[in-house]
Amino acid sequence: MSKNLTKRAEDYSKWYNELVVKADLAENSGVRGCMVIKPYGYAIWEKMQAELDRMFKETGHSNAYFPLFVPKSMFEAEEKNAEGFAKECAIVTHYRLKNDETRPGKLMVDPNAKLEEELIVRPTSEAIIWSTYKNWVQSYRDLPLLINQWANVVRWEMRTRLFLRTAEFLWQEGHTAHATKAEAIEESEKMMQVYADFVENFMAIPVIKGLKTESERFAGAEETYCIEALMQDGKALQAGTSHFLGQNFAKAFDVKFASKEGKLEHVWGTSWGVSTRLMGALVMTHSDDNGLVLPPNLAPIQVVIVPIFKTEEQFEAIKALVDSLTTSLKQLNVTVKFDTRDTLSPGFKFNEWELKGVPVRIAIGPKDLENGTFEVARRDNLTKEVIPSEGAAAYISELLAKIQNDLFGKALSFRNEHITEVNSFEEFKEVLENKTGFISAHWDGTPETEEKIKDLTKATIRCIPLDRKLEEGTCIFSGGKSVGRVLFAKAY
Amino acid sequence: MSKNLTKRAEDYSKWYNELVVKADLAENSGVRGCMVIKPYGYAIWEKMQAELDRMFKETGHSNAYFPLFVPKSMFEAEEKNAEGFAKECAIVTHYRLKNDETRPGKLMVDPNAKLEEELIVRPTSEAIIWSTYKNWVQSYRDLPLLINQWANVVRWEMRTRLFLRTAEFLWQEGHTAHATKAEAIEESEKMMQVYADFVENFMAIPVIKGLKTESERFAGAEETYCIEALMQDGKALQAGTSHFLGQNFAKAFDVKFASKEGKLEHVWGTSWGVSTRLMGALVMTHSDDNGLVLPPNLAPIQVVIVPIFKTEEQFEAIKALVDSLTTSLKQLNVTVKFDTRDTLSPGFKFNEWELKGVPVRIAIGPKDLENGTFEVARRDNLTKEVIPSEGAAAYISELLAKIQNDLFGKALSFRNEHITEVNSFEEFKEVLENKTGFISAHWDGTPETEEKIKDLTKATIRCIPLDRKLEEGTCIFSGGKSVGRVLFAKAY
Repeated sequence: MSKNLTKRAEDYSKWYNELVVKADLAENSGVRGCMVIKPYGYAIWEKMQAELDRMFKETGHSNAYFPLFVPKSMFEAEEKNAEGFAKECAIVTHYRLKNDETRPGKLMVDPNAKLEEELIVRPTSEAIIWSTYKNWVQSYRDLPLLINQWANVVRWEMRTRLFLRTAEFLWQEGHTAHATKAEAIEESEKMMQVYADFVENFMAIPVIKGLKTESERFAGAEETYCIEALMQDGKALQAGTSHFLGQNFAKAFDVKFASKEGKLEHVWGTSWGVSTRLMGALVMTHSDDNGLVLPPNLAPIQVVIVPIFKTEEQFEAIKALVDSLTTSLKQLNVTVKFDTRDTLSPGFKFNEWELKGVPVRIAIGPKDLENGTFEVARRDNLTKEVIPSEGAAAYISELLAKIQNDLFGKALSFRNEHITEVNSFEEFKEVLENKTGFISAHWDGTPETEEKIKDLTKATIRCIPLDRKLEEGTCIFSGGKSVGRVLFAKAY
Repeated sequence: MSKNLTKRAEDYSKWYNELVVKADLAENSGVRGCMVIKPYGYAIWEKMQAELDRMFKETGHSNAYFPLFVPKSMFEAEEKNAEGFAKECAIVTHYRLKNDETRPGKLMVDPNAKLEEELIVRPTSEAIIWSTYKNWVQSYRDLPLLINQWANVVRWEMRTRLFLRTAEFLWQEGHTAHATKAEAIEESEKMMQVYADFVENFMAIPVIKGLKTESERFAGAEETYCIEALMQDGKALQAGTSHFLGQNFAKAFDVKFASKEGKLEHVWGTSWGVSTRLMGALVMTHSDDNGLVLPPNLAPIQVVIVPIFKTEEQFEAIKALVDSLTTSLKQLNVTVKFDTRDTLSPGFKFNEWELKGVPVRIAIGPKDLENGTFEVARRDNLTKEVIPSEGAAAYISELLAKIQNDLFGKALSFRNEHITEVNSFEEFKEVLENKTGFISAHWDGTPETEEKIKDLTKATIRCIPLDRKLEEGTCIFSGGKSVGRVLFAKAY
């Protein structure tokens, strides 16, 4: 197959849009801003879900399910929450269609079936969940509540892009309630760490852990922890957030508990989420001009085997070898596909699996039959080697681990090369125009300066790194006092 | 804990509603007709999902995800589909809230943000999926398409009951496309069989496989296969359906393929689904006046261990025994909970785990320490026995298998005792008033008779059993000719 993929250097954005569709990850649907996640893309998301779900359960969380709809009045209850999200939402106002008498075969909204109170399709579930928690919490014995939900949410975005920004997307949202402030903060930090571990170890994407500034914080949160990743085009992508909600939602929805001492107190909350947006980060971190590059831990197919033959006899001999190799690989938990489609050439298949990012491709031809060898090609660095068929399974299994590692190492080097310290606004603008990436700079801590820099450069403060050095400095923009550097970048 | 549960004989419906809430399965939410599935209930649903998902994949299906919204015009495309579902739906008409200037702190729907075309929250996804398949299918090589989706759907039901009938519910919907009619029929039958295997082997609920009559068929289907179960109150419950769609959706959405011979033909379709309604079937098949009874295969906790002690020393000795037992049980893949809550009495705990349907309860007290024994109680038949601690894990593991088996056997006996053959309408009404259950009777095959019987008795034809004997007979209502018996019942 011919790929016809735009080169990244030509037009990164076009490359991304084309790749997501051509690699069968997702496509736009007939519904404005909503995507179809295709089976190959969904298989990757399922692997992400399975691992995250395992990690959530290991840290004591249970799954539950809350309604898709939020009555308008619940939104109003938490004022800041309403400010942050309630503006661009899908709103259900009616509950019945009827035949349009004037146009045969057509349906119309029944004007007599108007809801008394409009329902918002959840853009996030704090309101509906905290209105439920009110009945679940009476005493300190009911705490902590450690609950997660896998769900679809809708935010009426005007400009959408597959995975990165869609009207409907899939995510998980954790919502926890605690007896003390310290415990809730510990939970927010723990879940940020879970996200960092997952994104680094499974997605092979290095992240920087930090705090959002007040203006980038989730409305309704006291503190937002985040992990920030860097894409190949030098733009940052927020890969996950974990919010310490203080007592904001507990107060808005009157969630109180009797403490051990018998005092009635408001509980402390957190919420945290990652979404199908991570699929976009995955594509933009590792893939290249030949197509997708998938880390072995998330690849639905880890090894593809392509037979090269002229006679039926040769095919049978190859098949016998492949059957034995496949059995050994499966014992090592490696997912293998033997591509026996008979209407396609090996060259076409090579291209297709390259486009789809399968980490390891094995080709077996007549020469290999003679020599007792396989040809092994790595998708990540496009190198090939010939290995003895004896002991091949163990070799491939180790190779997959090595590829996972190498992908992370490569992304880490790139990220580290793209963090630039600057000490003046001139330098700041220069970096933004040339090298891009994260810019580490002193900032006076005011939303006003942040806003002005954003207006002038489109760069925002991605985070205040948790591990930053505390040092006196001078804000690159205002010249005001700073207590340490923050990271700026243009972002998705 | 005191259960305060209504007895089934008193008011079956009330018993069900109370039990679902008290056993922590689900509760009503602040949103009309929408439920909250609580962690304990959701854990059962997750077990059902995991097993079904495994079965779908084993039969060659992949998961994908399609939009929540369906534009009104797509609904109109398949006329019969629109007739069947489009009437009572949640309809999105606007996409923005704004501050209500006249009422500080309140939000209102922005009248300027009206959608050009209304969006229906999917009541089922045939329309959106077939409009997508149009672009996925060109040649016979693209077929079959074997796709499943796990999703939430919304049907604006006026009278709702937890799990059994809710405005929003969770389900899976398979949507497949095939090159031939025979292959599509084979698929519909295969998936009905997958459902039957799952419901019988995992949920321990016996089912009757059959065909729906024309009037009970899914609008837009040529044939609807179903599995029908019988609840303890003698009412039937449709546990799953699999539809052979013929070329109806392919024609409505213009989905054609080039056959091997180069002819352009419409594809053949199927769809099939089961939902959180199965949770209702689970409760109503096995549970009793003491609470939930869960089949071991679906129990989030299979074994609960309650320590009975007075001194710290006794507790430590019990704990040592429990640790060793737990390790052995986990090796046998048994899920165990050691209930060490120190503010609750053993009696309270016994009641709570009984209410929650944990299949096996083990109690260990000072006497057991002396004698090297455990007290083992079965939830299903409420029997107790004392067993030697030596070899207990293997014994319990086998006991769980036995309980699973016994539950199915008990439900099967009940079901079989509640299938009554009748040969007159008088007998028919008599059975409905007394014994209830399935009624096997001759029917003339007309929708008119079916409708009249329904109007007079509220009983409907649940299915035409696939294994029915073909025999000449006389319709109990009209006296017309019949070719075999069908099953009537009142149904959920």
